[in-house]
Amino acid sequence: MAPLFADLYLFTMLRAYQALGMQERATFSLFVRKLPPCRNYLVACGLADALAAVESLRFASEDIEYLSSLGLFPPPFLDSLKHFRFSGDIDAVPEGSPVFANEPLLEVTAPIGEAQLLETFLANQIGLQTMLATKAARVVRAAQGRPVVDFGSRRAQGLDAAVKGARAFAIAGVAATSNLMAGRRDGLPVAGTVAHSFIEAFDSEDAAFERFAALYPNTILLVDTYDTLEAVRKIVGLHRAGRLGPIRGIRLDSGDLDPLSRQARALLDEGGLSHVQIFASGGLDENRIEALVAAGAPVDAFGIGTAMSVSRDAPDLDIVYKLTEYGGRGRMKLSAGKRTYPGRKQVFREMRDGRYRQDTLALRDEGLTGEPLLQPVMRDGAILPAGIRPLGEIRRRAAEALARLPDPVAANAPAATPYPVVISESLGDAERRLREALVRTRGEGPF
Amino acid sequence: MAPLFADLYLFTMLRAYQALGMQERATFSLFVRKLPPCRNYLVACGLADALAAVESLRFASEDIEYLSSLGLFPPPFLDSLKHFRFSGDIDAVPEGSPVFANEPLLEVTAPIGEAQLLETFLANQIGLQTMLATKAARVVRAAQGRPVVDFGSRRAQGLDAAVKGARAFAIAGVAATSNLMAGRRDGLPVAGTVAHSFIEAFDSEDAAFERFAALYPNTILLVDTYDTLEAVRKIVGLHRAGRLGPIRGIRLDSGDLDPLSRQARALLDEGGLSHVQIFASGGLDENRIEALVAAGAPVDAFGIGTAMSVSRDAPDLDIVYKLTEYGGRGRMKLSAGKRTYPGRKQVFREMRDGRYRQDTLALRDEGLTGEPLLQPVMRDGAILPAGIRPLGEIRRRAAEALARLPDPVAANAPAATPYPVVISESLGDAERRLREALVRTRGEGPF
Repeated sequence: MAPLFADLYLFTMLRAYQALGMQERATFSLFVRKLPPCRNYLVACGLADALAAVESLRFASEDIEYLSSLGLFPPPFLDSLKHFRFSGDIDAVPEGSPVFANEPLLEVTAPIGEAQLLETFLANQIGLQTMLATKAARVVRAAQGRPVVDFGSRRAQGLDAAVKGARAFAIAGVAATSNLMAGRRDGLPVAGTVAHSFIEAFDSEDAAFERFAALYPNTILLVDTYDTLEAVRKIVGLHRAGRLGPIRGIRLDSGDLDPLSRQARALLDEGGLSHVQIFASGGLDENRIEALVAAGAPVDAFGIGTAMSVSRDAPDLDIVYKLTEYGGRGRMKLSAGKRTYPGRKQVFREMRDGRYRQDTLALRDEGLTGEPLLQPVMRDGAILPAGIRPLGEIRRRAAEALARLPDPVAANAPAATPYPVVISESLGDAERRLREALVRTRGEGPF
Repeated sequence: MAPLFADLYLFTMLRAYQALGMQERATFSLFVRKLPPCRNYLVACGLADALAAVESLRFASEDIEYLSSLGLFPPPFLDSLKHFRFSGDIDAVPEGSPVFANEPLLEVTAPIGEAQLLETFLANQIGLQTMLATKAARVVRAAQGRPVVDFGSRRAQGLDAAVKGARAFAIAGVAATSNLMAGRRDGLPVAGTVAHSFIEAFDSEDAAFERFAALYPNTILLVDTYDTLEAVRKIVGLHRAGRLGPIRGIRLDSGDLDPLSRQARALLDEGGLSHVQIFASGGLDENRIEALVAAGAPVDAFGIGTAMSVSRDAPDLDIVYKLTEYGGRGRMKLSAGKRTYPGRKQVFREMRDGRYRQDTLALRDEGLTGEPLLQPVMRDGAILPAGIRPLGEIRRRAAEALARLPDPVAANAPAATPYPVVISESLGDAERRLREALVRTRGEGPF
């Protein structure tokens, strides 16, 4: 973990807890308070990267020197950072699982200062991949089995978002990425075609097609540089003249994709190139893909960029990391509009007829019916096997779990009724009792 | 530069240009095709980071091994990467300058494959910081001189966006960031208060205030954990009892900030704490800040997170990197809705009465009246002094330049009339001639 990827106050609090001898164990819960209006579910994602970073968290001497330079921290505290390692426990929902508002994506239990220290990093990283996997699940659904390729790196919000985004997209079912760094990092299939600039650099579009196809058998040629259908005719002409190596497809990147794909398909079929696929890109999102598929446009695969890479219609999640227990007692705030539930938690997910029907947000050890979602993924600072799973396994889990959602929840359109998440009686009681005590004592306990 | 932060096709094209002996110099232009509907201008940002990365671009042996593993590239090409360095020229608009649609943020001139290779990286990085500096300029304007602090790292889209975002925010006039990594990297002031969890970990809110203020003189205490005004009364009570060390402020983080800030101000003033400032945070954006300021709410400083960190109302820019010249001749595509202008360019910005009145997008050497915006920032792969300026200088330039915009353009509300950017006669002629030739020859030159 980048040890200084943290808000300053995490360190001022860590030092305060040390100075005040407050070293009891605390539990913090990472969850999304409210789903964006245009989301019926979230796909939990980002755990493996986050755990690896937490396990390896150490402070280098230059980190400590920087903290020292702020003039806020006494030498004994700075010294203690030299030997810091995260010693706590993490329980988490497996990556690829659908989750809903208020359900913990993970819970951290550790001495309070240590647990607190992870806030900025975990919210940023789990929030990012969860947001992007969720967006990609919608895009993949819209494509109804046609491959979707991630072309969004140039528009993603920074390098980290592009690379980790490619992983999240793969988990949600995206077939490949154009980003080589992501391909190498996570073993993802990489894909790409050719840019307009390549075509433009030649004095003849014909020559550009012929040369590129000769160098890269089974490539995909870009046809919209000057005139889309004219370019398709040129490809047919080159093929008939025996001058075109084998190509896999053509790419349409502008214009009205529905009629253009039909006209291009007809030209290819008439020209003896019925095996050549049509690849569409250019400003696509799940809604445009859904419309093309519904209209029956003969598009075989989609390249998608900006809209998926920044989750344009929901570019952030209301993700928070909240103290829920300290020293064995539940904790919460009463701030207006920001309800939290005290205590360590579990989510029990019930199935009926192969479909999820209801979740119950409960205290950790209630043992209710249904599948308990949170699993131990780190103990005493060491990652457990459940925390880091192969990408293929996570991707399969996501596909299976999304198929188990009720149809209106799995749909891209807003669900008339949200997926039901109920609060267990014990958790409801605990919340009510603590709230009443806090109000009665005006925050001057014991409560 | 992360050498594999690139779309696969940049490498397939680089190798194709090598194989085909196409090594003439090309110019690519990085620009935003269209401003987002809710933006009147952009603040150019991100150049220094981008140049440093380009200058140091090298391929390590593991990068080359990965490329080799893809089965697309022959050994001579892979070998050539061992000695690769970027050898080209870059001209750019100085960071902190306002720019508009179609105006190059930068232009790269180099052997075509080399220049092409930078596309994904430059669009991502310059796009990110330009988008975020622009958003922050709006927030700073809304605050009308009150300090704005960046609290958004936990919600930014990844680590890179948070850290580089903090730099972009500082350039736009943001006073400080909570992110320590950003503070260290760019020498930015860091700031922070205390979290709800700290208050909650105590059995008494009084005790939490007293202890934290004792450890951190002149800190800012968070008052909305249980009951905002009750907490302010506790602070006054501690002060009267002589139990409160000196504090600088209180922070309101929820509820209706207008009445709460007035009531808190009155309590502090009556309690002999009129020097204690009121800091507001919690779901703010430029519109909410503008409303609080317009209403005269007694807020002394603002903490802003998500809305600024992801540029929520415009989370992407239509930024593109387009070939405009190859082998000394202008190049462009005709794709529907994606007009580009051929040739190397300059922007001439005219002033009248201390205000910018009009830009002319022209060919590079036209020498029109007005200030030429693009300056040489890299030659033969080496950064020139104009490319990397001290942050304080860039921040001043941004403030001065934004003050020179026409009032309706500088405003946060959409301008009724966009800032005028006209096309020079020569550039217009060049575009028309090339378009006609491309249409006439159907892309089968010479054109």
